[in-house]
Amino acid sequence: MNHPVPPVSVRRPFPPALLAALQQAFGERVSTSEAVRAHHGRDESPFDPQLPDAVVFAQSTDDVCTAVALCAEHDVPVIPYGNGSSLEGHLLAIQGGVSIDLSAMNRVLSVNAEDLTVTVEPGISRKQLNEALRDTGLFFPIDPGADASIGGMTATRASGTNAVRYGTMRENVLGLTAVLADGRVIHTGSRARKSSAGYDLTRLFVGSEGTLGVITEITLRLYPQPEAVSAAVCAFPSMGDAVRAVIETIQIGVPIARVEFVDSLAIKAINRHSNLTLQESHTLFFEFHGTDASVKEQAELVQDLAAQNHGEGFEWATRPEERSRLWNARHNAYFAMLQLKPGCRAVTTDVCVPISRLAECVVETERDLLASPLPCPIVGHVGDGNFHVAILLDPDKPEELVEAERLNERIVQRALRMNGTCTGEHGVGLHKMGFLLEEHGEAAIDVMRSIKHALDPRNLMNPGKIFAWTA
Amino acid sequence: MNHPVPPVSVRRPFPPALLAALQQAFGERVSTSEAVRAHHGRDESPFDPQLPDAVVFAQSTDDVCTAVALCAEHDVPVIPYGNGSSLEGHLLAIQGGVSIDLSAMNRVLSVNAEDLTVTVEPGISRKQLNEALRDTGLFFPIDPGADASIGGMTATRASGTNAVRYGTMRENVLGLTAVLADGRVIHTGSRARKSSAGYDLTRLFVGSEGTLGVITEITLRLYPQPEAVSAAVCAFPSMGDAVRAVIETIQIGVPIARVEFVDSLAIKAINRHSNLTLQESHTLFFEFHGTDASVKEQAELVQDLAAQNHGEGFEWATRPEERSRLWNARHNAYFAMLQLKPGCRAVTTDVCVPISRLAECVVETERDLLASPLPCPIVGHVGDGNFHVAILLDPDKPEELVEAERLNERIVQRALRMNGTCTGEHGVGLHKMGFLLEEHGEAAIDVMRSIKHALDPRNLMNPGKIFAWTA
Repeated sequence: MNHPVPPVSVRRPFPPALLAALQQAFGERVSTSEAVRAHHGRDESPFDPQLPDAVVFAQSTDDVCTAVALCAEHDVPVIPYGNGSSLEGHLLAIQGGVSIDLSAMNRVLSVNAEDLTVTVEPGISRKQLNEALRDTGLFFPIDPGADASIGGMTATRASGTNAVRYGTMRENVLGLTAVLADGRVIHTGSRARKSSAGYDLTRLFVGSEGTLGVITEITLRLYPQPEAVSAAVCAFPSMGDAVRAVIETIQIGVPIARVEFVDSLAIKAINRHSNLTLQESHTLFFEFHGTDASVKEQAELVQDLAAQNHGEGFEWATRPEERSRLWNARHNAYFAMLQLKPGCRAVTTDVCVPISRLAECVVETERDLLASPLPCPIVGHVGDGNFHVAILLDPDKPEELVEAERLNERIVQRALRMNGTCTGEHGVGLHKMGFLLEEHGEAAIDVMRSIKHALDPRNLMNPGKIFAWTA
Repeated sequence: MNHPVPPVSVRRPFPPALLAALQQAFGERVSTSEAVRAHHGRDESPFDPQLPDAVVFAQSTDDVCTAVALCAEHDVPVIPYGNGSSLEGHLLAIQGGVSIDLSAMNRVLSVNAEDLTVTVEPGISRKQLNEALRDTGLFFPIDPGADASIGGMTATRASGTNAVRYGTMRENVLGLTAVLADGRVIHTGSRARKSSAGYDLTRLFVGSEGTLGVITEITLRLYPQPEAVSAAVCAFPSMGDAVRAVIETIQIGVPIARVEFVDSLAIKAINRHSNLTLQESHTLFFEFHGTDASVKEQAELVQDLAAQNHGEGFEWATRPEERSRLWNARHNAYFAMLQLKPGCRAVTTDVCVPISRLAECVVETERDLLASPLPCPIVGHVGDGNFHVAILLDPDKPEELVEAERLNERIVQRALRMNGTCTGEHGVGLHKMGFLLEEHGEAAIDVMRSIKHALDPRNLMNPGKIFAWTA
């Protein structure tokens, strides 16, 4: 066993009548094969798989309504499934139920280039979306490490390397369509850039992790492709120096598009995995977007700040193929890091702290990690105050899991003491439920629970995630 | 009577025992004087005042808890009061109850300059806040026309002239403290720039118009004062030309800080009120923020776009005092417009549409207004697709109110047909409840109502606003 499954894992009955009804409705688009269920009962977290009882392959909002309504009729849980790239156990069917696979719902429904908006189905991945936008001169900036689905990114309030400039899914989802626990459909938001028309249901569903409904359409903000882009890497003698260069960049208001920290161990992993020859030091990756003049100006400012913080050289990657190579390497860092320890899995931390505390937080964390027997590379969206430690453990050694959880807990406690959050972008899932209470307090969790009870009174939507259900 | 009060205006009993308990708790800080109640039972909307039964002057979150808990005990409504600048009837005690005046809670609790955040009490006004920030090199950009309280701005999801660059209260509130209907206190969000830790309660309270609780602390994002600022005005021969210049500016991604439309009638009003000599044509006011180089570059781009759309001259206001004069005049436009028709009140529209539809929406609206006997100046945050028509009516002529509401309804219906919203920044209050249903659909309103029922089961928090209470 890789990881203890939380206590609420009592599987609910899966009535044959429901299977029959699903088969009637979906024919070959419902599966109970072991292989299909196994694929849908796991994610990139270190948790043991927990298989759903069946998988429905939806092709439309109507399909989702039908499946959800049938499950409601039989009191059976529903778990939405996008690309399976969750790091927190969101997809595990800990109470059984039906996984609704949305990957075939991957169409671009409309591009409104003049308004800088696009409406998509949830199964489209971020790369597919940008591929579809290629000829419009626009792009969608949010880029978690994995090629996640837009639905999953919405459900977890994801971000990535561009958030420092363009915001997260919170800022970039304008509206959505969702199927509620009882099969009703709601439409939230509009295509206007702003609105004061009632409760912000869009933002309520962004980050709700499948626990309030299944998201079936999403309208996103797009951005004009910048006239000029340049990227650079710079090595630093210490983590503190690298992070201080970032803090100063943010504080003076440079509109930097990306600024990523990669520690020397992660650089080593990336060099091996992506066949690069980066200097194996603590490193910042930068990207600047704007007009020619503003990119030049931003880059000069940041280069000065890096030098003042003992940055050693500042290497430019100006050609598009060089930049792609660099950022692909960064995006593949998670898989590169896993290869540092053959056969390992990772507990990935995701704290985010106010930027003024980031150097202190990273440096204290480094001290913990150096004292641990486990390899723990660090990468981070440091412009946001967010960083990840990939704690690499042997799944066959329970003591390594204990050590990983000890480190994780210390890192989260430190971030909470600094007025930060236990999760900057991965979501709560199964792994951070305990920390959530500590972060927000009992009264705020009670409010979340009241909302859950009001919208899903029988706890059918991705049950057992975010917070414990109590009547 | 200026305006029909909506049907839910049955006043609830105000038990003498509650008054006694409030007096016991607050001494001279509770008032039942006619003058104080009259001041708290009105706002800038054209609705007739509806007086609360008492007013409590709160000085702390504890005070608010006490007042709310006492009201809950006696089943009496609570209406939070900031600066009284609502345009939609938010503050009217249509079911009676206690107005909690938060204006004495106007402290800056902490400035975290390194993190670009500030935590304030709700009674501080946007100008007071910026005054307090003056020496930090930072500023808070959200600026509705009135010098509204930050609490009121949070509760209505306000924006203003800077939203095109800096976002609205939705993007700029990082966290808050609120007192719930039963007197419990919750803290939402953190000081981290982003988080995926559970339901987004911050965004749920932003725009909840006092119906879910009383907001007693707010943490906001701040921004470095730009190194360079320049402003300009440019006149256009038609509304369509002016709006098309804006649309093109947004579509090519110029990071413009402000772009405001003021029609010729509103210019006339502003000239009179602020003693200016602007050309009395349809006009755009621009402001550019950035480094010297980027401001110059933005301004050149926009000047070209204005010229291509028949802009007539482009006058610069580069000195700070010239700029202040211009923007003060813009901020006072509402009061300036009221003076076009002595003794009038205004029904103010607030639609916001996708930017691609803005020219069409404004031009069709102009046609309606030209055919109306009422004076109807237009101002707009056109970079967001948001504009306001101030329909000026004589409060003693019921037929003018009927005409104003007819125009308002046509404008809203047009915006909704264009995938826009009935309110870009003023909120729903009493005035837009009917449109809300049309905008979001019955199912979405039901979800809002479920949340209200879950958090305020006895409908005590600012009852009768946003949507009708139905059990």
